[in-house]
Amino acid sequence: MPRTVLTRLPSSQLKLLKTPTLSAYRNSHFVNFKQSPRPFSLPAYSTRRTYLTPAIRAHQSRKMAPQLDGYFSQVDALSSHFIDRLAKAVAIPSVSSDASRRPDVVRMAHFLADELKTLGATVELRPLGKQPDAPELELPPVILARYGSDKNKRTILVYGHYDVQPAEVSDGWSTEPFTLKVGEDGRMFGRGSTDDKGPVLGWLNAIEAHQKAGVEFPVNLLMCFEGMEEYGSEGLDELIEKEGKGYFADADAVCISDNYWLGTEKPCLTYGLRGVNYYSVEISGPGADLHSGVFGGTAQEPMTDLVRVLASLVDTDGKIQIPGIMEQVAPVTKEEEGLYDNISFTMETLHESLGAKTTIFEDKKSTLMARWRYPSLSVHGIEGAFSAPGAKTVIPAKVIGKFSIRTVPNMEIEQTNEHVYKYVKEVFAKLGSKNTLKVFAQHCGKWWVASPNHWNFRAAGKATERVWGVQPDFTREGGSIPVTLTFEQATGKNVLLLPMGSSTDGAHSINEKLDKKNYIEGIKLLGAYLHYVAEEPME
Amino acid sequence: MPRTVLTRLPSSQLKLLKTPTLSAYRNSHFVNFKQSPRPFSLPAYSTRRTYLTPAIRAHQSRKMAPQLDGYFSQVDALSSHFIDRLAKAVAIPSVSSDASRRPDVVRMAHFLADELKTLGATVELRPLGKQPDAPELELPPVILARYGSDKNKRTILVYGHYDVQPAEVSDGWSTEPFTLKVGEDGRMFGRGSTDDKGPVLGWLNAIEAHQKAGVEFPVNLLMCFEGMEEYGSEGLDELIEKEGKGYFADADAVCISDNYWLGTEKPCLTYGLRGVNYYSVEISGPGADLHSGVFGGTAQEPMTDLVRVLASLVDTDGKIQIPGIMEQVAPVTKEEEGLYDNISFTMETLHESLGAKTTIFEDKKSTLMARWRYPSLSVHGIEGAFSAPGAKTVIPAKVIGKFSIRTVPNMEIEQTNEHVYKYVKEVFAKLGSKNTLKVFAQHCGKWWVASPNHWNFRAAGKATERVWGVQPDFTREGGSIPVTLTFEQATGKNVLLLPMGSSTDGAHSINEKLDKKNYIEGIKLLGAYLHYVAEEPME
Repeated sequence: MPRTVLTRLPSSQLKLLKTPTLSAYRNSHFVNFKQSPRPFSLPAYSTRRTYLTPAIRAHQSRKMAPQLDGYFSQVDALSSHFIDRLAKAVAIPSVSSDASRRPDVVRMAHFLADELKTLGATVELRPLGKQPDAPELELPPVILARYGSDKNKRTILVYGHYDVQPAEVSDGWSTEPFTLKVGEDGRMFGRGSTDDKGPVLGWLNAIEAHQKAGVEFPVNLLMCFEGMEEYGSEGLDELIEKEGKGYFADADAVCISDNYWLGTEKPCLTYGLRGVNYYSVEISGPGADLHSGVFGGTAQEPMTDLVRVLASLVDTDGKIQIPGIMEQVAPVTKEEEGLYDNISFTMETLHESLGAKTTIFEDKKSTLMARWRYPSLSVHGIEGAFSAPGAKTVIPAKVIGKFSIRTVPNMEIEQTNEHVYKYVKEVFAKLGSKNTLKVFAQHCGKWWVASPNHWNFRAAGKATERVWGVQPDFTREGGSIPVTLTFEQATGKNVLLLPMGSSTDGAHSINEKLDKKNYIEGIKLLGAYLHYVAEEPME
Repeated sequence: MPRTVLTRLPSSQLKLLKTPTLSAYRNSHFVNFKQSPRPFSLPAYSTRRTYLTPAIRAHQSRKMAPQLDGYFSQVDALSSHFIDRLAKAVAIPSVSSDASRRPDVVRMAHFLADELKTLGATVELRPLGKQPDAPELELPPVILARYGSDKNKRTILVYGHYDVQPAEVSDGWSTEPFTLKVGEDGRMFGRGSTDDKGPVLGWLNAIEAHQKAGVEFPVNLLMCFEGMEEYGSEGLDELIEKEGKGYFADADAVCISDNYWLGTEKPCLTYGLRGVNYYSVEISGPGADLHSGVFGGTAQEPMTDLVRVLASLVDTDGKIQIPGIMEQVAPVTKEEEGLYDNISFTMETLHESLGAKTTIFEDKKSTLMARWRYPSLSVHGIEGAFSAPGAKTVIPAKVIGKFSIRTVPNMEIEQTNEHVYKYVKEVFAKLGSKNTLKVFAQHCGKWWVASPNHWNFRAAGKATERVWGVQPDFTREGGSIPVTLTFEQATGKNVLLLPMGSSTDGAHSINEKLDKKNYIEGIKLLGAYLHYVAEEPME
């Protein structure tokens, strides 16, 4: 499937998109993603949500998949074995960004492939060729696996990744990061425990528990596990696009377990992500960097112009100053107004994760709306200026300001770009500068919103209620998980984000952990989801 | 002598003050300098300049120092020998910033010391201890040398440096940088040819030519040659301050040959430098860098505030927006108005060195005034924000804007700082941000203006006219040469900046050169200066 929106970045830049500086906030991922195939309609969405009446859900969850009880018991019985399996996986330091660890990443692929084969799956290790930014390195293979090929069953495609972020005790870990440490409080510390080895093994464990419980596996399971997620998913998009009508051709729906609950208490299903248009504003003048002693006061300085342009984009309270942006945003409907109050989220949690009380809003609803359904504009930095500690009296010759707009329904990429270009050019023109301005989008990825009323989501909602005894929050995220849109576009099927871990797991951080309860109940949830998704009417 | 104004920077920061990015503009140096011991009065200066009437000069230059003719002939006769000496010096790659070259820097010190001893000077190699930012490295010694100790003669202290900037053929040199290549057009290419081995050897050559011509050396010459100038002059200030009343105690005047003509045709004497107050504006909020997907729209972003503060400081045409700065600037007198027209400088030269026509002014006079006698404000960059190529969707938690104000008579450091702090705080307060602001001066060095009517300058003016047949331009520089003020303060004597090379020599750049004519006539000039300065009335 051809890409029409995403501008490809070289891998050196993709690397920048995947940095541990954002580690504490990995409950949302952050690479650009692509055109949603469907226009989004908030009123339609709002009315759909009526299916969530407790009476209907309780009825449905009781009626469907009675065989799950045996499966659940078996998961509990095998819990030590499943934790051992996670410990074996954590012990393989499959750090994809570290060239010296590449053999470990490959070893992790073979570990998974061997486990899958033992469970009776058919497995392919697909080579992806050389790593573009390090041509001496072979990329780790993508694991494509199939468990079951019964034409009478639905086929569910699941995605996960077996590589991990770097981790060293010297970073500040309280335990050896590649040794799973299960505490008495049930917290299981180890790199990759929650991101994403726990969820990946969840699928394997679900297969095994079905086999040992003698419960028929309810679907054909297609698996796609990659080993470069923490380094820009090098090579993956091409494979997914190619296999959309190949290996993945019979998939009826897609499920990705690689994000997190909004908090720590309540499970959620994620059905929306903001898009992002990332811009560069380049202002240049002198032929080379200048000495401010010699030229200060005599030359028009690109930095002077650039900070004036950047200052015109957004105010302290996040109000975007560019005409034509907010005008594209879908209006808030009365039905939508009521959605936010029920979400399990508090300002205290936000202050904690922010590390400060410097929020724009004081209330939960405004904050969630600002994160999920309104655009935002952030100024990220300036390339070409002096950025080191200390003092340097340079007049930079060419400076490139970087800012991005998080986009939401019903913003259009091209229309947004045109408004940005026009506004930036107008602001610059008013400066009366002899310097040269360029403004362009580095990459654009559209917002994504799935229907939470799709049978894939309905099934996951029922499975969650069955396992956790609580109706999940239906959440959106402020960031993006690019592979979501890739799978949606390549397969043409609904994609569900079904998290296993919670917001405090610290993916990308030191002391990453997965709670034993989230792991074991999560295995139950993945299995239960497969049962519900096997039966949920495709209306 | 205690320092009262300069805030010491750690050497890692001093290094930043001495970078090759400014290489093309090394006709002005650029580290902060210190309190001028004298208030500056523009009207007084303007009236002093009347001594430069051609009639008086011609009369004086004919009358004084008739023995120079023999010296000049001897310099011409020894010119090949002097070029050989420069070639030997250039062949020693005394790169002070490269630890692996440290033995070469020390070798260069011994080469100079041996040459000086052969010429009959008494020489000390003063150790400076370990390099603070690389404690395994011994700093190269400072050469302190004395030639002559006749109590009936004046004593002149000269400064230069024997270390050089890095240079590799792969940087783009047309010749091997550490092999002096003398072209048929008289250009002598080689690292250090003009900065500063040519001028340093100029003093040695002047001694030798006097000896071989049988002309009595007119003064006692004190020499101070350092080996760390290109790396922040580590350890030098302390030595100068200590020896001001020690080794340098009998100095009557100081001469530094380490800058360049304003252009290529006309020699100049430099009597003024701008000061610089370097500021940091730090804005912080979140506890750590944030992901713009998760927090964009919900948190007040320090970068949003910072670009707004930086945008308020100066406009595209260089007009400083901070009240109280321009008000401190000494008014332009009628006499001063006439000074600029005669300076050998064209807008074409400026456009060439700027590499663009993006100048604020279209005329020479406004440009020279803006460079020499008006303050300027440059925004240098931002620390803590995203500064690499590519895209990163970070909300930086703490960003530090860097800007500096070049200061001129009669600006006071403290008064300027207070105006800056007050204004920045006011602008920030208007933003209504919950983030935290800090604004502080990283370092401040006052402007320096010597009297061009001092006998030291008068002597140099006459010597220049005698050698070059033209009255020198009396110039100021927009940047600073910090050792100037250190010597002035430590010795309490007048300091003259007497350049040998021209503006196109490319100190710090690839293909650094010294014109043979500038070298040979420069040796004559240094010798002639010593004769004139020996006789010029100290009124």
